[in-house]
Amino acid sequence: MSWTLTAADLPDLARGATLLGTGGGGDPYIGQKLVERVLGAGSITVLDPDEIADDLFVIPTAQMGAPTVMIEKIPAGTEPTLALRTLEKHLGRTADATMPIECGGINSMIPLLVAAETGLPVVDADGMGRAFPELSMETFAVYGVHGSPLALAGERGETAIIDTGDDDRQMEWLARGVTIRLGGVSHIAEYAMTGADVRRTAIPRTLSMALALGRGIREAREQHRSPFEAIADVLSTTLYPHVRELFVGKVTDVERRTTDGFAKGRATITALDPDDDAALEVAFQNENLVARRDGELVAIVPDLICITDIESAEPITTEGLRYGQRVRVLGISTPDIMRTPGALAAFGPSAFGLADAFEPVERLRGADVRRLITL
Amino acid sequence: MSWTLTAADLPDLARGATLLGTGGGGDPYIGQKLVERVLGAGSITVLDPDEIADDLFVIPTAQMGAPTVMIEKIPAGTEPTLALRTLEKHLGRTADATMPIECGGINSMIPLLVAAETGLPVVDADGMGRAFPELSMETFAVYGVHGSPLALAGERGETAIIDTGDDDRQMEWLARGVTIRLGGVSHIAEYAMTGADVRRTAIPRTLSMALALGRGIREAREQHRSPFEAIADVLSTTLYPHVRELFVGKVTDVERRTTDGFAKGRATITALDPDDDAALEVAFQNENLVARRDGELVAIVPDLICITDIESAEPITTEGLRYGQRVRVLGISTPDIMRTPGALAAFGPSAFGLADAFEPVERLRGADVRRLITL
Repeated sequence: MSWTLTAADLPDLARGATLLGTGGGGDPYIGQKLVERVLGAGSITVLDPDEIADDLFVIPTAQMGAPTVMIEKIPAGTEPTLALRTLEKHLGRTADATMPIECGGINSMIPLLVAAETGLPVVDADGMGRAFPELSMETFAVYGVHGSPLALAGERGETAIIDTGDDDRQMEWLARGVTIRLGGVSHIAEYAMTGADVRRTAIPRTLSMALALGRGIREAREQHRSPFEAIADVLSTTLYPHVRELFVGKVTDVERRTTDGFAKGRATITALDPDDDAALEVAFQNENLVARRDGELVAIVPDLICITDIESAEPITTEGLRYGQRVRVLGISTPDIMRTPGALAAFGPSAFGLADAFEPVERLRGADVRRLITL
Repeated sequence: MSWTLTAADLPDLARGATLLGTGGGGDPYIGQKLVERVLGAGSITVLDPDEIADDLFVIPTAQMGAPTVMIEKIPAGTEPTLALRTLEKHLGRTADATMPIECGGINSMIPLLVAAETGLPVVDADGMGRAFPELSMETFAVYGVHGSPLALAGERGETAIIDTGDDDRQMEWLARGVTIRLGGVSHIAEYAMTGADVRRTAIPRTLSMALALGRGIREAREQHRSPFEAIADVLSTTLYPHVRELFVGKVTDVERRTTDGFAKGRATITALDPDDDAALEVAFQNENLVARRDGELVAIVPDLICITDIESAEPITTEGLRYGQRVRVLGISTPDIMRTPGALAAFGPSAFGLADAFEPVERLRGADVRRLITL
């Protein structure tokens, strides 16, 4: 069902999108502030993907860059719409709607900023079902919609249009090169497609899922219920039904560097009990990629690995990780469309240079867990 | 006067263009082979800039990259025409002619390759009057024709269109970023302009000058005359009348690295007489930038510093410099259009981070020398 989003929804959406960012995706707070400024008391129409016309012309919009840079280099706010307009002009066709390319982090907000500026509706779907670090890691691409031509805009009004045919990895490589030279952040429009393409290649209703997650966490806190139970409740009715607690502990080491336009590194989380020498190691490239408990695999991409505050369930991004934080780490299952051989080739373990084979988080370490075990 | 160029002209043109490359510009031999393959027994019309219509639509074409990479990564040959076609499509206007953006090195050949492939004529003019390492170092830009939008093509058919408005340095910066990610070489179309713009902003008849230089050197060798006298003879009737011998000696040190997409370094040339401790040091960034004899400035950008074989006058590029080569180093004056305050800001000493003020080569170390002193 299509619905209407107002500025009052944005803090909940930001919280949910940060959780789905699995440590990356960029801090949505900055995006939230940009949307609030433009939207004011207005509203945005969010279209259900099952209800859009087959020939609706959709141009997704997003921010590109390293999250570590994004929190220091605030956009002017006009860049994503400039990217959209640049792509429209290049294609000779105007968009009927925009859409996220990822539902985690700031990229849940950028299409809303475009919508608030242009009056376009936003399609409730995306192509990552979480956040991923590279533009080619899209179900759109896996199922035959390619990212080229991509339009890119910088804060001083620079634009670039990149066309690599059906080679989305080369598109990512070249766009990343331009983004690095723009200071580490750019805004893009890419993966233009029809409504029929959306239904065939996108992960549906992830914007509303992010909003429901953020709202569920907030309401549970207000009502002194467990926000982790709220997360499990919300997800139980979605394409992401399995939630597992992977570890509870304290951040004791963070290694992080911004290199090649990415934030790469690893975090070590050790048990709270000083007599327990158990430890969880989480490796990330913008997003959390793999979690190992005492060397044993407990979750791996594309499944979600979410590091959250131990009590409030507030999600913690890779750039927000600090020594001493007490955290609860969740593993969340991903939809079937993200676990096919083609999808795993695009954004599974091997796409990140990991030797491990993908294993669904609900099968690792024991029986299927449909609801989070409350601690 | 407009004229016709055939494959038989290419070796002479390549020699002259290498001299005007002042050490850089890329090896035109590779470009020559590409043009020969496409041109066969055909011919190319070269238009005199004084004879073209005011509204002739000209799209210059070129290769971009570090010369050290260019000699190892041979183009497919179709890239420059793809860049031209990409820019035509973006502008919604087809070109009536192409033109070099620099007259030194391989970029004397790339517009000929486009001409041979498309049948377009080539305008006998360019925007550097030599070779320079950066796309913004153009008299076109100095006198108000900007490079954006620029179209860029890679060997696998990738294209990019970059638009930075009137900021040609930012255009260079972003296009260089894409070129590095394409492996260090790309082909471009930029600085689209009218015939009236050409007359106002370009350096005229540099393609015919390169051909005359190469032919003069060859004929002098065949007739056992001094090729250096031939160089002076040819230049005496051009906008480059002053030729000075800066040094004669042996290459004793070359420091060279390919970094940030450029070949940077310096060469030391010492006197042939072991009792003479005089030395010339030449610093380069793709092209030779400044020559100092025993610490004293003897020539500096934009004037030409050409390192040539001591006897044959064969020009030696920065990537071709080797220990032990016996060389004659020439300083050649540049046209007035290249020495205005605006031109010097774009490609004078300060544009390369040099602290020296520009001094015309004919004024440094003594009286005006209109003809080379034969040794």
